[in-house]
Order: sequence, then C-alpha cells, then structure tokens
Amino acid sequence: MADYAQPVIDVNALTALLDGDHAEVRDLVRKELASHADVLEAQVELDRDAFRERVLEVILEMARGGASGLGFPEEYGGGGDIGGSIASFETLAFGDLSVLVKSGVQFGLFGGALLHLGTRRHHETWLADAIRGELIGCFAMTETGHGSNVQALGTTSSYDPSTGEFVISTPDESSRKDYIGNAACHASTAVVFAQLLINDRSEGVHAFVVPIRNSDGRLCSGVRIEDDGPKIGLNGVDNGRIWFDGVRIPRTNLLNRYAEVSEEGRYHSSIDNPDRRFFTTLGTLVQGRVSVGGAAINASKVALAIAVKYANRRRQFGAPGSGTEELLLDYGMHQRRLLPRLARTYALHFAQEVLVAELHEVFSVPDADDELRRRALESRAAGTKAVGTWHASDTIQECREACGGAGYLSANRLGALRADTDVFTTFEGDNHVLLQLVAKGLLTNYASEFEDLDQLGMVRFVAELAVETVIERTAAHKLLERIRDVLPGGDDKWDQEAGVLDPEYQLAMLRWREEHMLAGVARRLKRGIDGGMEPTEVFSRCQPHVVGAARAHVERLVLEAFTAKTAAMPEGDNKVALNLLCDLYALSVIEDDRAWWMEHGRLSSQRSKEITRTVGQLCRKVRPLAEDLVDAFAVPEEMQRAEMLA
Amino acid sequence: MADYAQPVIDVNALTALLDGDHAEVRDLVRKELASHADVLEAQVELDRDAFRERVLEVILEMARGGASGLGFPEEYGGGGDIGGSIASFETLAFGDLSVLVKSGVQFGLFGGALLHLGTRRHHETWLADAIRGELIGCFAMTETGHGSNVQALGTTSSYDPSTGEFVISTPDESSRKDYIGNAACHASTAVVFAQLLINDRSEGVHAFVVPIRNSDGRLCSGVRIEDDGPKIGLNGVDNGRIWFDGVRIPRTNLLNRYAEVSEEGRYHSSIDNPDRRFFTTLGTLVQGRVSVGGAAINASKVALAIAVKYANRRRQFGAPGSGTEELLLDYGMHQRRLLPRLARTYALHFAQEVLVAELHEVFSVPDADDELRRRALESRAAGTKAVGTWHASDTIQECREACGGAGYLSANRLGALRADTDVFTTFEGDNHVLLQLVAKGLLTNYASEFEDLDQLGMVRFVAELAVETVIERTAAHKLLERIRDVLPGGDDKWDQEAGVLDPEYQLAMLRWREEHMLAGVARRLKRGIDGGMEPTEVFSRCQPHVVGAARAHVERLVLEAFTAKTAAMPEGDNKVALNLLCDLYALSVIEDDRAWWMEHGRLSSQRSKEITRTVGQLCRKVRPLAEDLVDAFAVPEEMQRAEMLA
Repeated sequence: MADYAQPVIDVNALTALLDGDHAEVRDLVRKELASHADVLEAQVELDRDAFRERVLEVILEMARGGASGLGFPEEYGGGGDIGGSIASFETLAFGDLSVLVKSGVQFGLFGGALLHLGTRRHHETWLADAIRGELIGCFAMTETGHGSNVQALGTTSSYDPSTGEFVISTPDESSRKDYIGNAACHASTAVVFAQLLINDRSEGVHAFVVPIRNSDGRLCSGVRIEDDGPKIGLNGVDNGRIWFDGVRIPRTNLLNRYAEVSEEGRYHSSIDNPDRRFFTTLGTLVQGRVSVGGAAINASKVALAIAVKYANRRRQFGAPGSGTEELLLDYGMHQRRLLPRLARTYALHFAQEVLVAELHEVFSVPDADDELRRRALESRAAGTKAVGTWHASDTIQECREACGGAGYLSANRLGALRADTDVFTTFEGDNHVLLQLVAKGLLTNYASEFEDLDQLGMVRFVAELAVETVIERTAAHKLLERIRDVLPGGDDKWDQEAGVLDPEYQLAMLRWREEHMLAGVARRLKRGIDGGMEPTEVFSRCQPHVVGAARAHVERLVLEAFTAKTAAMPEGDNKVALNLLCDLYALSVIEDDRAWWMEHGRLSSQRSKEITRTVGQLCRKVRPLAEDLVDAFAVPEEMQRAEMLA
Repeated sequence: MADYAQPVIDVNALTALLDGDHAEVRDLVRKELASHADVLEAQVELDRDAFRERVLEVILEMARGGASGLGFPEEYGGGGDIGGSIASFETLAFGDLSVLVKSGVQFGLFGGALLHLGTRRHHETWLADAIRGELIGCFAMTETGHGSNVQALGTTSSYDPSTGEFVISTPDESSRKDYIGNAACHASTAVVFAQLLINDRSEGVHAFVVPIRNSDGRLCSGVRIEDDGPKIGLNGVDNGRIWFDGVRIPRTNLLNRYAEVSEEGRYHSSIDNPDRRFFTTLGTLVQGRVSVGGAAINASKVALAIAVKYANRRRQFGAPGSGTEELLLDYGMHQRRLLPRLARTYALHFAQEVLVAELHEVFSVPDADDELRRRALESRAAGTKAVGTWHASDTIQECREACGGAGYLSANRLGALRADTDVFTTFEGDNHVLLQLVAKGLLTNYASEFEDLDQLGMVRFVAELAVETVIERTAAHKLLERIRDVLPGGDDKWDQEAGVLDPEYQLAMLRWREEHMLAGVARRLKRGIDGGMEPTEVFSRCQPHVVGAARAHVERLVLEAFTAKTAAMPEGDNKVALNLLCDLYALSVIEDDRAWWMEHGRLSSQRSKEITRTVGQLCRKVRPLAEDLVDAFAVPEEMQRAEMLA
C-alpha cells in the first residue's frame, strides 16, 4: 500500500462542509451539550427517577438558550428557522439520547402538533409556553393494540352538543395510550388522537388538546396513568400509559386546521375524502421522521469516533519477537468492519442534508407547498428514517463488538448509545411499514387520487392496470432514461465499458436495480391477483420485494446526494478523501446486494469479485485517514465518554 | 397454500428429541429456574448491589440441588457427568443470564481450572468447597491490554527460592486483570494466569491459586480491586479489576498438571515446546466455549418463543371492512424475519448436541483423549461458539424489533436477553479470533507440529508448501471426494440434476464452498508471501477470507448434524416438520451467500432465484407449525417473562 499518494485532510474545513448552512446552530448545541456533560454520567449513576428529573432540567435549561424553539414562528418566541431546528435536534444526538428524545417529544411532537394541526386560537393559548418549556406536553397517539395502523385507533372523542364538549374515552384495554413520552411524570397536557364521534358515527382520527394533570401535578379527573416502567434504554424519558374515562374538554380543543365541529355538532372539513384528510393530518408530522433519521446518523458518528480511535490505539497480536503488537485498525477484518460503515455515515449525512433543505423549503416557502411535492418529501423522510436508523443500530453494535470487553462497560458510551437508539427503528413509524409507504408512493407516483389507498388498495390498484402502465407512471421509470443517456453502449456493455470506480457506473447500477425491482413488484402484484389469490395473500407474499424495492430507492437517493456533494467540492485533498469514501459507500452497497445484480444479468462473476477486491483496497486507502474523518464530525470531547481511550 | 398436507406436531415427543440424553438434568434445571423466577424481576427492579446478592444466593441455592457440580468427579461431591453438566448449564440460559454467567465463572472457569490444570493436592484442598459454593472463586486471565492474545499477559509470578514462594505482581496498568467475574465482591480466591518467572526468565503463562480476600471479606495484603461498574448487561455479575503488588503464595499453589517448579527453582514440564504447553493449558478450558455456545442457542429459543407467540396474537392492518386485522405472523416479511432464524436455532441445537457428545467422550473415556481428536474438538467448540453467539445476538435483536415498542419495555424479557447475551460474542474468545483458530486448524489439519504456530506462523507455514500440498492435507479436502461420490455427474451438472430440496445437493453445496474457500485462503497466503509482502500485511489482507472459510466450515458441520438427526428420526409428522426446518436452514444459508456460489460458477442465476423462492415457500409451510415448534423448546412459562403476551 503506497502512502505517498495519501491525501492530507483539512479537518476544520471538512467539519465546515459537514455542518453546512447550520454551522452556527450546530456549534451552539455542541457548547450546550458540553456544558451539560454530567447527564452522561447521570444516565449510568442515578436511579431512574433522579435521572428523569435531571433530563427534564437539561431540556428546560437548553430551551432558555433558544435552540429548542428554532422551528416555531417568531411571534411566539420561536426562531422561524425550520432547517436550523432540525440541525439543532440532530446535533443533540451527540449527547445523551434521553435528552434528545424528551426534547423531541416536547418541542417536535407536542409543540409540532399544536403548530401544524392547530390554528391561531391554539397557538396563542399554548405555543409560547410550550416553547419556553413552561407547559410540558405529550403526544398521545400510539395505543397498546394500535401502533402502525393509526387509522384503527380505539380511543374515542364524542361530541356532546348539549354542553359543547368532547368526551374522551378509552373503550378497551387495547385502546389505552401506550409508550407515551412525558406521560408518566411531567406532562400536564396531552395532544390525544382519537376517533371523532358525532352521534356515534366516526369521522376518523383527529387530534384534541386534553389536560391530564392539574397545576399541583395530580391527575385530572377521569385520567388514569401508569408508568411504562424501565426500558432497554432512554430511561430518562418517562413513558406511560393513559386511560380516559369520560374526560370532558371544550369543543375548541379540537386541533382544527383540517376539520371543525360546529356548536350544534356539524362536522366540516376542507378535505372531503376522509382517508386523504387522515394522511394529510399525519403528513404534517414529517419533521419528526426527518429529525429521528438525522439523530440516528449523528449517534452513529459518536460510536464511530470512539471505535476508530480505540482501534487506532489498541494493539493485539503481531509479529513474534517484534516487541510491539499490531494496531487493530491495521487488520483487514477490522477495516472491513468499521470503514464501510464510516463511508455510509458520510453518505447518509449528505442525503439527510438534501432532505432537510427540502423540508425547510416546503414548510417555509408558501408556494413550495404543493401536494405532490409534500408527498415526495414525506416518502423521502420515511425512507431516510428507516435506512438511517437501521444503519445506526448496525453501526453502533459493530462498534461495540469492535471494542471487545471494554465496549461492554458502561464507562464507555457505546452501550448507552446502542440501547438508547434501539427503539429508533420502531418509533416514529416502524421501519418496515415506512418502507412500504415509500414503495406505495413510488408505484403510484404519489398521485393524489391514490394517496388514500392502503396496502391492499395498492394491490388492487396495481392489479387493475397493465404492468407497463404502472411502470411508466413511476418516478423510477425516468431513471432508466438517465441510465441510457449515460451508457449509450446499452445495458449489456456495462461490464466492459465502465470502471467500477466510475460514479456513472455506480449510479447506473443503483438506478437500474431500483427500476427493475419496482417493476418486479408491480408484476408480482398483478400476477397474484390475476391468479385469483386474495389481496391479503398477494401482499403478504410480495412484501419482502416491496420492502426491498423501497430500500433500493433510498440507497440510490443517498448515493446521488453523496456524489453530487463531492462533485461540487473544490479540488483538493478533502475532495480526494471524500471521493474515496463515496466510492467505498457505492461499492459496499453493490457488494452487499451483488447476488441480485448477478441474478438479473447485470453483473458478471468476474466483475462481482472485482468489486469485493476494490472494497478491500478502498478500506486500505481510507485507513490512514480514518481518525481525521471521525474528528471532522466534531463530536464534543465531553460526549466521547470512553474511559478506554484515556 | 394448501393446509391439508400440514403435519401435526407431537410437542412432547419433539421436546424429548431436543432434550436427548440429558432430559432428566434439563428438567431438573427447568424446575430450579421456575422456583427462582423472582430473579427475572430482580434484574429489573433491584439496584445493582442487591441484584448481585440475589444472584449469588440463587447460584448457591442451585448448587445444593446438585446440577452445578455435575461435571466434577464424584469423590469431591460432583456428578461425574460432563455431558450432563453442559446440558445443565445450557438450560440455565432459559433463566436470568447473570445467574448463568456467575455460575459459569464459579463452576466452569474457577472450578474447571482447579480440576483440569491442578492435581490431586489442589483437588483435595479446594474442589469440594468450590462445588458446594463454600469457596467462591474467580478466573483472572484477561488483562486490560491483553485479551485475545493470552500469551502476551503481563502479570508476573516470580519464584523466590529463598522462601519457596511465588510473588505475583502487576507490572503496569495494561496488565491489571480486567472484567474478572466475582472479583468485585464475592471471590475469596483467584486462579491467576501469569508469566512464570525464574531468575527473571519467563517460562510462559501458567495458572496460580491466589487468595484475594480474607475470611472477613477484606482484601488480602498486596491486592487491590476496583469494580468494573455498570455494564450493558449481566449486572448481577460483579466484574472487577485486580492489581497485585508482590503478593506471595506457596510454591504448591502453582496448578501443576503440565509443569512444576522444584523447591530449588528448577522448572520442569511434561511438554517440551512452550507454545504447545500453552495451548494444551488453554485447551483444557474448552468446556467454557462449549457451554457459552449452548447457552447462546438456548437464549435464542427464549426470544423466539416470545416473538413467535406475540406474532401469533398481535394483529395489525388488514382487509378494509373485514373488521379484524391480520396476525403479524401471516405477513410474508414477518415470516422471513422469524422463521429462518427458528430453523437455524434447531440446526444449531443439534450441532451443539454432537459437540457435547464429543466433549463428553474425549473428557470421560480415557483412550478417547488423543491429541488430534482434542484439537478437532477445540476447533469445533470454537467455531460453534462463534456461530452460536452471533446467531443469538442477531435472533434476539430481530425478535425485539419484531415485537415493536412492546419489545422495548423491560416488562418483556427481550431487552434483558439482548443486553445480557451481547458480550457472548466477545468473552470466552472473541468470535473473529476463534474463527481464525478454526481456519488455522483446518489449514494445518490439526497436525501437532504446527499447533504452536500463531497466525503469522501459519502464514509462513502455508507459504512454504505448495498450495496443493496444503489443500491435500486439510480435512476439508476429503469433502471433495464425498461430493464426487454423491454427484457422479460432475460439478457442472449440479444445477440440472439435483432438486434444491435434495439434502445431498444442499450438503454438496456447503462442502464445495468450504473446500474452495480454504484452498483460496492457502493460495492467497502463498501469493502474498511469494510476492514479497510482509507476513503481517499478508495476513491482514487475507483475514476476511480466513474468517469466511471458517464460517463456511461451521455451517457445513451444522447442516450435517441437522441432516443426520432428521434422517435418523422415525417416520411421522415430527420428522416431516423437522425436514421442513432442515430445508429452510440449508436454503437460508445458501441464500445468504448465494453471491459467492454464483461468483464461483456453482449456482446459476435461475437456480439462485429458485432458492429464494423456495425459502419463501418453506416459510409459509412452517408458519402454521411455528408455535408448536417454539413450545417444544419447553422454556418454562415463568421464564417467558412477557407482559405483552398476557
């Protein structure tokens, strides 16, 4: 391995590139975290009750610094900067993740629901207090028996025209609210999602503001709450279960941005189709998914910073008689374990940057908010959240194992990172369900007339069209044309004509896979229905392909983001380094799924072996840069809690 | 999917098949666990100190039942049944894993070291007390800076002929003993591994019995101990660090089965070669690896029992208007997530059964104990431990995610299972290092003249022979002949001639891969050295292939064990069911690595897709049997701590 050609990374410049437009906010949060570093110790040392109180204090202290309110309108004391608010939240993930999640519940979910589902009357009553942390709230959507299927929630909110009130009730045990952050101890108010009943007829799920604790902290009449108890992680967040027994709230506590009930009990909505209304309601909560995905990517950075440094210090085995042992990071296997994950973290970072910019524009620029664009944004948010949170679980786990027994001790942060992020794959939308939503969007090209279709509706819809029609309608179909433009020699000549390090080759591979997988899903759905199978059975059998196609889509978007970012960089060593990482990401993705391309005649066995070989070479080239590459994440020293590095 | 052909499982008969020769012991332990079910609650509810004390009480109470001492000679109060002792330990893994690990430290590591490395004088002095739990000990091998590379331990034991004592010392911080179970609180005695120095010359690592606490519980003079503090899991085990400052012990405290120091300070060993002596010393500890592998497999059973039952009760989404939602286990993706892992758990169970029988024979039947056979046993133990513990991490994690938010609550056991087993991939030999040992054994055919080679020695050794010679010497080479016998049509016709459900096809695929991967490693090592590369660099680059070849070897052994087991079953529905599982295991293994076979011309793209399709079909066939299949594990009801199933 020749050393002379190695680039020398300018770490500060790379940090600036990563921090992008929101460098100032990110640095503010870094400083806040460093000044609250005790909370990492508290997670390990305090008992659950004391830790919860400390976490609450920290988010209240941080709220005073202004970062928590960045995404809210300035007239209520917010910062009017949605992109900045996501950057702020993402950066919180360098610190203790109970602080992150509790902050997300308070400002993202509770505050976000008031802002996006409520109207001026709600904003004026509650928003300023919520932003300052003087009103602590919770977001009571999930029920024990109803998680992903929010439309099936059981909690009811019946309008009583005689008093002009809604009456909130929990009809059965499977409809108790569950896993609700802030519910067990701190919230005085809940945004409750419930079936809106008028004369016993449901108008679908709507959100209501429901006081749950009095000013002295006691539960309101008719409200019962139980602590969810200890969890795998995030024990600084007080999750709980809530039952409602005929709790009465004023009619005006309906968050009425999309629907209203008149005093006499007449229901009216600006959106006629109830399914579309429901998905529009949920869609305003897209920020939560963007935030969790970003947080997951940043948590991965912390783990990689620790594991790469450990591997660059710790020695084990080596040439007998040489007196010194080898550094772990000089072992090929160790490089293989850490460096492709480092490359993927960079890739996801830049994909997240694109997503946040799009979110910022859709929510900040009024005429950017057209429905198709919003759906595409929601889809991208769902996909990035799924891929980003799986990446975090996988990466943090590998980092733990790569640090051996030391990684198992709580004195080193990896265990807490792993345990706290574990639920990220589940909350804010289970990853598998999210990828199904992505696939649905792609298959229907986000067409508004199909948005209300659930999975089975999608099966029937696709089945009724010719496969070609479906494929032509999909966004992915356009990809094929781009592939042909790039590789005029035709698909068959890829292997001969393009080098594996050619970005156009890499992109063409990912685009072709996505298009082909989507078409395959369409064909399978159609064949199933045409063959007389029940739609549920058709969907069940097709489901692994649905999820696979969505994942292929996200991986393509991620590579496009990374490729575009590096292409736009000025020439120099940092660009050389990121190009290495980008190649490593692209080829690792292809390597992981190389069987698929071989099965579909798009990769020769020769070329497949070459890709594996090249991944190994790229790892060796990235190895001497690894520590600079993790330093560029600028995870505050205080947050790299790792006794083993001392 | 036709239901009529579904077998009806006789659950009790299947449990009897799984429990095998040690059904009685396993049932005894199941009863013990059920009667100590409070410890599962204690893990969540008690603070660390109180939990540690409860765990100690439990292992002492269980010691009275006799199961803990099963592996020791009857003359010291043991049961004289090594196979039974492993079965007992494995079954403990249904319960709290701190109890399992603390029990393993006390009876397996500490007691095992006294038994296997000591001689009659040590047995008579300590063994009966250790078996009864009246003498609590620890096994002080690992040091902060020396984990996998035990030969490089820094702790010294210098012989002082003037007093006839050894003087134990910790020369530097990286040589402090670390992660030592029982050290922080409960052990009064340690078996300490240290460099035996005579006149400042090291005779290599030997084991010494060192008192560390007085009868009143205070530390002995010269001993310093620090608590390792909280860990990701296993917080009922008191791991600690130990420093020795000139601690003096009698000469007779050297565990002298393989080496002795005379009063005058003359060293003598029955094994001349110091490397061979060292590996023989470590080899006696093979039971630990067998035990951990078996425990990991059983922990997977608990997680699968919980997740399969949950998926067979919990409903989510479904046909609109149908009124009921679909069971999770009716979704294709959910089947894909759980059922191949269920099949692999069965496969590993039967592979473990073969391993335990071999261990029992080698350690119980005097003339079975020839060196080559012992090496093969050690290799098989190392490989099964690595594959079994990775399987546990992967399976328990998938089970957690498959149970969604409920799986994240400590009220359900999955989190504790995951956290407690997490270190299994690291302790008793890091999995990657273990697989390297397996590969080394295969490449040198366990020949005694090469046993003392470390990885670099292996590189040089292989490099000096012709590749053909290496391959011919390997155990794997014999596989090729068996493949040819089975498939006389020649390798090229596999695809046309054999069905994917033909066990001979499945075995032939796994055998061919193993042989070809090993030959590839040999070729790569040779090419590297011939090309003038440094041995360290050659090994580093080859390492992923080394690990891959070893894994292929283990997967072949596992399939052989499962195939043999099902073949020997009497005809009937249970056999039909296990044949389905065996096919599912075999084809999942092939599917996971299908890229490799395609790259090497042993799998057409057609056949590769057929395998994926067949895995899906097998999942659908296994699905109605799934709950019976987990019930057959007979995990005690009390151990399936899962509020969500209530």
